[in-house]
Amino acid sequence: MIKVGIVGGTGYTGVELLRLLAQHPRAEIVAITSRGDAGTAVSQMFPSLRNRLDLNFEDPASANLQNCDLVFFATPNGVAMKQAPALLDAGVRVIDLAADFRIKNIAEWEHWYGMAHASPEWVAQAVYGLPEYDRSGIRDARLVANPGCYPTAVQLGFMPLVEAGLVELDHLIADAKSGVSGAGRKAEIGALFSEASDNFKAYAVSGHRHLPEIRQGLSKMAAHPVGLTFVPHLTPLIRGIHATLYAHTKDGADFQQIFEERYRNEPFVDILPPGSHPDTRSVRAANVCRIALHRPQGGTVLVILSVIDNLVKGAAGQAVQNMNIMFGLPETEGLWQLPVLP
Amino acid sequence: MIKVGIVGGTGYTGVELLRLLAQHPRAEIVAITSRGDAGTAVSQMFPSLRNRLDLNFEDPASANLQNCDLVFFATPNGVAMKQAPALLDAGVRVIDLAADFRIKNIAEWEHWYGMAHASPEWVAQAVYGLPEYDRSGIRDARLVANPGCYPTAVQLGFMPLVEAGLVELDHLIADAKSGVSGAGRKAEIGALFSEASDNFKAYAVSGHRHLPEIRQGLSKMAAHPVGLTFVPHLTPLIRGIHATLYAHTKDGADFQQIFEERYRNEPFVDILPPGSHPDTRSVRAANVCRIALHRPQGGTVLVILSVIDNLVKGAAGQAVQNMNIMFGLPETEGLWQLPVLP
Amino acid sequence: MIKVGIVGGTGYTGVELLRLLAQHPRAEIVAITSRGDAGTAVSQMFPSLRNRLDLNFEDPASANLQNCDLVFFATPNGVAMKQAPALLDAGVRVIDLAADFRIKNIAEWEHWYGMAHASPEWVAQAVYGLPEYDRSGIRDARLVANPGCYPTAVQLGFMPLVEAGLVELDHLIADAKSGVSGAGRKAEIGALFSEASDNFKAYAVSGHRHLPEIRQGLSKMAAHPVGLTFVPHLTPLIRGIHATLYAHTKDGADFQQIFEERYRNEPFVDILPPGSHPDTRSVRAANVCRIALHRPQGGTVLVILSVIDNLVKGAAGQAVQNMNIMFGLPETEGLWQLPVLP
Amino acid sequence: MIKVGIVGGTGYTGVELLRLLAQHPRAEIVAITSRGDAGTAVSQMFPSLRNRLDLNFEDPASANLQNCDLVFFATPNGVAMKQAPALLDAGVRVIDLAADFRIKNIAEWEHWYGMAHASPEWVAQAVYGLPEYDRSGIRDARLVANPGCYPTAVQLGFMPLVEAGLVELDHLIADAKSGVSGAGRKAEIGALFSEASDNFKAYAVSGHRHLPEIRQGLSKMAAHPVGLTFVPHLTPLIRGIHATLYAHTKDGADFQQIFEERYRNEPFVDILPPGSHPDTRSVRAANVCRIALHRPQGGTVLVILSVIDNLVKGAAGQAVQNMNIMFGLPETEGLWQLPVLP
Repeated sequence: MIKVGIVGGTGYTGVELLRLLAQHPRAEIVAITSRGDAGTAVSQMFPSLRNRLDLNFEDPASANLQNCDLVFFATPNGVAMKQAPALLDAGVRVIDLAADFRIKNIAEWEHWYGMAHASPEWVAQAVYGLPEYDRSGIRDARLVANPGCYPTAVQLGFMPLVEAGLVELDHLIADAKSGVSGAGRKAEIGALFSEASDNFKAYAVSGHRHLPEIRQGLSKMAAHPVGLTFVPHLTPLIRGIHATLYAHTKDGADFQQIFEERYRNEPFVDILPPGSHPDTRSVRAANVCRIALHRPQGGTVLVILSVIDNLVKGAAGQAVQNMNIMFGLPETEGLWQLPVLP
Repeated sequence: MIKVGIVGGTGYTGVELLRLLAQHPRAEIVAITSRGDAGTAVSQMFPSLRNRLDLNFEDPASANLQNCDLVFFATPNGVAMKQAPALLDAGVRVIDLAADFRIKNIAEWEHWYGMAHASPEWVAQAVYGLPEYDRSGIRDARLVANPGCYPTAVQLGFMPLVEAGLVELDHLIADAKSGVSGAGRKAEIGALFSEASDNFKAYAVSGHRHLPEIRQGLSKMAAHPVGLTFVPHLTPLIRGIHATLYAHTKDGADFQQIFEERYRNEPFVDILPPGSHPDTRSVRAANVCRIALHRPQGGTVLVILSVIDNLVKGAAGQAVQNMNIMFGLPETEGLWQLPVLP
Repeated sequence: MIKVGIVGGTGYTGVELLRLLAQHPRAEIVAITSRGDAGTAVSQMFPSLRNRLDLNFEDPASANLQNCDLVFFATPNGVAMKQAPALLDAGVRVIDLAADFRIKNIAEWEHWYGMAHASPEWVAQAVYGLPEYDRSGIRDARLVANPGCYPTAVQLGFMPLVEAGLVELDHLIADAKSGVSGAGRKAEIGALFSEASDNFKAYAVSGHRHLPEIRQGLSKMAAHPVGLTFVPHLTPLIRGIHATLYAHTKDGADFQQIFEERYRNEPFVDILPPGSHPDTRSVRAANVCRIALHRPQGGTVLVILSVIDNLVKGAAGQAVQNMNIMFGLPETEGLWQLPVLP
Repeated sequence: MIKVGIVGGTGYTGVELLRLLAQHPRAEIVAITSRGDAGTAVSQMFPSLRNRLDLNFEDPASANLQNCDLVFFATPNGVAMKQAPALLDAGVRVIDLAADFRIKNIAEWEHWYGMAHASPEWVAQAVYGLPEYDRSGIRDARLVANPGCYPTAVQLGFMPLVEAGLVELDHLIADAKSGVSGAGRKAEIGALFSEASDNFKAYAVSGHRHLPEIRQGLSKMAAHPVGLTFVPHLTPLIRGIHATLYAHTKDGADFQQIFEERYRNEPFVDILPPGSHPDTRSVRAANVCRIALHRPQGGTVLVILSVIDNLVKGAAGQAVQNMNIMFGLPETEGLWQLPVLP
């Protein structure tokens, strides 16, 4: 059994990690911390876990995380960069679900996240945890930077194209829509039911923190800088991201075949038949990305539809997938639950 | 492996059965029928099952159901009573998720369901499949009448009280609220998103078909006829039933303790601590009933809150639980998924 | 034109007051205050009011409320009892949408609201603003205590029965369901979209602040103390209250006729034909209460279904109705908008 | 009073027309037809209209539409082209809310709508009813083709740019999201609550009927053919369209100023301040289009956000606006209701 610790388990990615890990046959949660809720039973905060997870939140200071094989950070941005290095130095492997180690360019990270970075040296060592792109890097990583939710949906949708050099890289467009759980379990007016339900809106059009992350990833895949317009929207669902991607094709390749080839052996990427429209609910609560391709009116614009559950393939599920890779387990271990539909 | 067939798999209880059975380690779906969709791949209708369930809908006439160990009927009312007897006679065991075999009094059934009953003799033999009430009967049953969704939530909430004779039986009230999936996957105006969302309403207040079913069950538990007012409501969630039950207590028993005792060994009934309010989402997609008790202002009215997922403990999950019992498997086999929250 | 001031306009009852008053042909909003948002344009916070309401939030200290004919308090409980007396003494009439002046028994108020009352003398003078019960009292009132949302739906549903002495008063039951806007525009975890949508739950079953208010009102109508069990629930809609009321009838009166008679001249109470089930959306955004009656199976239990929009007939709309009465305007002035359906 | 008839009033655009016209001070609904529901009281089907609209649905054959000043067709595509000509010949003016008269190229219409056109001669005479583009044409029109919902949001968002020649016309992109009421009040599986709620999906990516309509409109505005990729999505709200528009700018004009100038005198188009993100709820139930502009990272891609209520500015409200223009009334008459928020 892999001994696992979770730092900051009271948010939505935290409780989703708990749901997945509590059902994982090869992992054992030995500690979970929360500064504000130390002493509280996890199942009191999340009654869905009653009788299935007998753990209390512990104070980060006293929790014995150093004895873990792996620690997940499900904390706000800026926490892992301060607390992870000590664990890493003690030989504990770490997966950070926040953004602290995702952006290689420290200055760019500091610009977008508005704080000084506390451990640039670990940024250099961190492996970006998108298994479909860098499985072998993840296998050997001591520190994995788990991708953001939008970046996962967008990069998986564009990857076969930019890798193969089949589209113009200067004007990619990602029009992305997220469920409200993407905003986290924080008491904010904008995420109230009476604000967010029966409503649809774009936000952060002038610049969202996932933009540099996506740009970095796609540029690396393309071995060339990409130009990207990224517009996120808030849509009234709890879980789910739908990325609608637009690219100008350079020539008339068989894109459907290229995608099918690229992802043929991927257990968690599903290329739908031509003409399909993936529902976000077709991946609800499951670690899957479904993708469909369209060329409207046979023109030069390729439209890629990519859906994930932002809390699973976009966060906790991908983190467990990375854990499986890091510890030599079958990649689907503990992640084989079917989507919940309806 | 138990060889399982499903008759009528295109509704919501059907697809939920598929989700549960496809993940069940001891069951194998060998046939699924649909008159209207014969030939269609199941995963084409329900993309959530892509790459995980390789089956086509078959025509009921040609499907080899007689070779199954067990056949589930997930059909509209009135189908199983016609088709199940031939299978039963051939030695196949049957679980009917519809209402055909639930009501022992044929005349009453015919009154509420508006048709003549096609196999009264099997009604007599059928066992009502509420495991917490009649586990041993289910074990030996050839034909199980799987309870309705409202009846499951209401009976589990009242059972300890009426069994123990602790409340007045003449004036029980069940104010129940259901998610819209309870109406089935049928194209009807009233179940449209634009009708049912951002809306709340009661329906069938003058008489709902689950009333006689609940009354029969509670009367049997009490060994005495009960009087029940049952008011169902439609609430804008996909899954979930919340039953708010009112009973006049006869004396000052420790109701909390009585409930905890009654359900102590039940894997799928969870009595919450005093003062709790169960969320429907705390059982979403899981085979659990959570119950909490209140005596407002210490008065004589006992308020019981009982929640289930109508498609799981209220339908497909309970059917699989019954299968497990009928075939001597651990009762939780294939039913141990954690609820999906948020 | 009636010169109107609003204290505390940044919540949902505040913005609803703005919507109604901005369209009222005989009222002019001359000041609106907010401690936290002084200086901000109202239409910046609520873009739905752009180009239609040219006002800034003002600091309560400097706003010239004393020149108003009428001031609405749309503040949290405990504010109006401190600030309203000075205005009242200056001759300004006041409608308080919070609970400060609703409960005549000061000790009971202090028990339920957890604070000492700052102006008991004004409680005695305040008129409870349920027009269908006490129109003449409202006409002459200097201070109107606008009823709570649940109390409006429940009292209008029970009033004809308790006034006429046709039901047993000891065991009334009110099973009430509210949309999430009833919780106010406050940043609280429980009201987040990801918590409250696709979910249903009871809350405050042991005791809700609206219980003493309803009990006081019904007891006064009955001229006799009533016993009431009140169970509120949270349901995933923005606006709407559905009260399902249960009463034991004493005899076989023609309840339908009694309700129709009682409300014959009421512009804002609509008794539906026998057998009806009112939708909450049938009153969405309108100042209407719709009521339907049922006697299931012809028994002795009477079921009353009563729906309102909690922000309109349950708050801001009723407040404007009270204003119309107080200032001798036609009662429907500015309140004649049709419900928004779908 | 303008005597108004409505053909086909049982859908969502029909009931919205009823809501608006029943409150219009200068219009009188004298007849409303429905083949299937003749004899039914309108308020029985739509209880929101109880006590406010005393009309029965009439059979189209017997309704006296010829005496109307104006007849609205709120019928499925293909009805008005058969029934409107007789009325037009009798001197009745007509506004068709369906698509029969929107596309000037008959062959293209027949291609997209899959039927032969029954009155091409009236297509030629029809005026496309987008007031902000062709107010004077509408004023004199005998037959107005009321624009589709998507086309209204998209054209108003692009119009100032294509008129002024400020963007590249070959590669416009419109990523549009619609609430479910846009699918109409038809009993279809895909529009069920349990299918459409908590879900997000694209549809008709290969080609949607509104594509040729938008292309025709923009090409006319630009006096040049435009290339457009149009991807519609279904989002779980009842009302609302959010169009996210992408255009490559040719130079660095002050786009904010250009939009403000273009719409300065328009009562129903609101250009938000730079940096804004319009919510669909900010126009809920109101005849308004709100638009905001962004140039992410100061690049060459202009992002335009355009929101309307699909049933109001996208259908019934625009139809009433057109009526006001045709009959010389103030354009805002009967359309001045404030949006309903929250």
